[in-house]
Amino acid sequence: MSEDLARVEKFLAENEAGYLEELKAFCRIPSVSADPAYREAIAQAARFVAGRLQQAGFDRVSIVPTGGHPVVTAELCRMPGAPTILVYGHYDVQPADPLERWTSPPFEPAVRDGRLYARGSSDDKGPLLIPILAAEAWLTQCGSLPINLKFLIEGEEESGSPHFSGVVAALRDSLACDLVVSADGAMWRADLPSVTVASRGLAALDVIVHGAAKDLHSGRHGGSAPNPIRVLARLLASLHDEEGTVTVADFHAGVIEPDPAILQAIDAAIDVGAFDPRTYFTGIGASLPEPLPSGRRLLMRQWLEPTLEFNGIHGGYGGAGTKTVIPSQAQAKITCRLVAGQDPTAVKDAIARHLRQRVPSGYRLEIVDHGPGTPAFALDRDHPALRMTEDILGELLGRQPLRVAMGATIPIGAVFRSELDVPTVFFSFATSDEDYHAPNEFFRLANFRVGLIAWARLIDRLKDLRSCD
Amino acid sequence: MSEDLARVEKFLAENEAGYLEELKAFCRIPSVSADPAYREAIAQAARFVAGRLQQAGFDRVSIVPTGGHPVVTAELCRMPGAPTILVYGHYDVQPADPLERWTSPPFEPAVRDGRLYARGSSDDKGPLLIPILAAEAWLTQCGSLPINLKFLIEGEEESGSPHFSGVVAALRDSLACDLVVSADGAMWRADLPSVTVASRGLAALDVIVHGAAKDLHSGRHGGSAPNPIRVLARLLASLHDEEGTVTVADFHAGVIEPDPAILQAIDAAIDVGAFDPRTYFTGIGASLPEPLPSGRRLLMRQWLEPTLEFNGIHGGYGGAGTKTVIPSQAQAKITCRLVAGQDPTAVKDAIARHLRQRVPSGYRLEIVDHGPGTPAFALDRDHPALRMTEDILGELLGRQPLRVAMGATIPIGAVFRSELDVPTVFFSFATSDEDYHAPNEFFRLANFRVGLIAWARLIDRLKDLRSCD
Repeated sequence: MSEDLARVEKFLAENEAGYLEELKAFCRIPSVSADPAYREAIAQAARFVAGRLQQAGFDRVSIVPTGGHPVVTAELCRMPGAPTILVYGHYDVQPADPLERWTSPPFEPAVRDGRLYARGSSDDKGPLLIPILAAEAWLTQCGSLPINLKFLIEGEEESGSPHFSGVVAALRDSLACDLVVSADGAMWRADLPSVTVASRGLAALDVIVHGAAKDLHSGRHGGSAPNPIRVLARLLASLHDEEGTVTVADFHAGVIEPDPAILQAIDAAIDVGAFDPRTYFTGIGASLPEPLPSGRRLLMRQWLEPTLEFNGIHGGYGGAGTKTVIPSQAQAKITCRLVAGQDPTAVKDAIARHLRQRVPSGYRLEIVDHGPGTPAFALDRDHPALRMTEDILGELLGRQPLRVAMGATIPIGAVFRSELDVPTVFFSFATSDEDYHAPNEFFRLANFRVGLIAWARLIDRLKDLRSCD
Repeated sequence: MSEDLARVEKFLAENEAGYLEELKAFCRIPSVSADPAYREAIAQAARFVAGRLQQAGFDRVSIVPTGGHPVVTAELCRMPGAPTILVYGHYDVQPADPLERWTSPPFEPAVRDGRLYARGSSDDKGPLLIPILAAEAWLTQCGSLPINLKFLIEGEEESGSPHFSGVVAALRDSLACDLVVSADGAMWRADLPSVTVASRGLAALDVIVHGAAKDLHSGRHGGSAPNPIRVLARLLASLHDEEGTVTVADFHAGVIEPDPAILQAIDAAIDVGAFDPRTYFTGIGASLPEPLPSGRRLLMRQWLEPTLEFNGIHGGYGGAGTKTVIPSQAQAKITCRLVAGQDPTAVKDAIARHLRQRVPSGYRLEIVDHGPGTPAFALDRDHPALRMTEDILGELLGRQPLRVAMGATIPIGAVFRSELDVPTVFFSFATSDEDYHAPNEFFRLANFRVGLIAWARLIDRLKDLRSCD
């Protein structure tokens, strides 16, 4: 270890107590992006981030307006010729409801059992604060950073980032970099170091079946009038086979083989007992299917296979008792998770074609397209930054991390790829069990400590990024 | 025509203007049974009916409490040995929403183009007032009625009559009679006299499919977690074939052949152009199925074939945009219309068996039974009272009425059959196009006039009921 890095790590370790107080202060700001009632808190959180970057010594700190909540940008680019890294994170948080299920109030941070309980502590205020503090430590202890570092911190991640790709496009020149490192994301399991190297894409559409122009009495008209629920059920049932595999023609068009490292990671996860089918189904409170699928099969389905899921279905009467109505329409909400090689628009077109071919006469089919969707994300398996993050985690956590995929969609990977033409690696110290979209969100203080050291080392090693290319 | 009857008819004709004012006063009372906000109006409507029966000269007029809104009973039984007839009707009305679609306010009766516009004018205040006025005319003009007449007027018909069968059972002795004549119901078409001789029964159940114990993220869990919407759609799709015919084993068990008179009526209706498939689908605002079913086929389906209709389907997210959720449950509401010979409980059991056999492992099926249901109703095709009503309509409307069935369920027919062991004939002067469950309900004043004469005659002829038995 270089003397510089040793000094940085020592400084970080000595200042932990103060960092925790700063994180608590950050978590006291109820920056809920989805609820307009928290608009002032959002502005306050943006100012907090900007102020902290300023205090750390960053240049050109800006709060940049968007069509929604602002982004915060900053840079410390004083090393001509060294690699330039853009750090991504977000200062907004999920809503805190239901409040009554919190043990301590969501915006009054409380430490219990080595965990900091607060809304946003894990997603993403703790993980986001870490690289700022690590950069500051480099600057104060060594007078400079070995790389050029930029920050882009958004305020709408928990609301679907509606303005994000536009902002990245608009700021393309000032965000130019060699690599994005995301401080958002989460390690798969608390007991098993991992890095995320792929995530599924997303395509969304609504299917609406129309029958008569108004709701009809099911006594008078039952048997002769069109029933859109019946037809919708038949249409939806035609989209999968009995095992739940999508049967839509061309749905799987273009799918490419997954990174063998992910398949190896699945096997490794099963081997170390990190994923057990029985525990999985029990954990989500579902009864066990028979025969029980293997863990490998389930992880394949979560990580590496596309899905067509029904997220909602609605039509007719839903209250207590009965109402003898034939509704004029029924609708379903569909989202597909996509794997590498699938084109979101082509997938939606294939589904629309499938349904249009099957809608019987006497009914009208309406399909609502929810935007362009997001292709799957996959990091180049040989990217040197990926190796660096794996090595650092291996050193600090005692075992080489697994390469894992995410079933969920990470739109930023696709945005940075298309707008800045750079890959994104994930280096977050949150863990996926930290209830970050539920009551009693917490952040493990042990991971806060490890994260500070890990980021200090990553800043050090990334100076060699270009020479590894 | 007897001198008595001639006097009665003359009196009724002379007093029409006053009767209309009385009907308006009745319609001014917003006796909406479904909404607790109208509780006082319900009580007022019950008092109105009781007061009018008292004024007409009825004995033992009572407002009888039930678990819900009261029933009004009265009798004029001064002819020992003569037949006893129980008249049924209801003083409650449908809610008036949406108010903005009424041309004149729902509870401010207005006459336009020979129609009285008001909520309840057609269903059932106009048709119900008629037999009271006809009986009064008999009493004032002749000093007595040729038969014994009882009234049972309920206040919960528009709310599913939850206490009705209990009240009829409790009042069994005082309601004893030879025949029920319902002043509720409606003629099928304004241009074609008809009598209703059959109606379909009803069985209702909810189907709920449970997956995980809570809603899950469709990114993280999509592909591995159970999706109850998918399974519900498959289950529902298995209940019909492509043409919409019910495929449940034993669903049709016990079905008996319909009254040939109804089949003849269907043919007659088609012959006189009273039912045209193109007009039917256009009228309900649906696009035309191809090939277009024949009118005979459609009427068969409405009147004489059982149905299994989905009245509602709900699960997961139903708002704007997308929400990437896999819901923990999805449910559908089902009602079946039953034909003669089907047992409501057996039908529900058959559906439950069908579904239980098909629910895949890993899911839990819950079936909610909505009570005992109602068997189909069919009047003895040779009942003398049926002939009497047909003859009177033939005399007054210029052509012999068709015998029609109703797709909808008339629970009172089954209640009077099981509790009092008597048949029910329908003698209402409402017409099914009078928007009685919609804005701008109206009652044709021409039918009000015809109804008064018709009821005067029916009271006269029913004196011969026993001798026809």
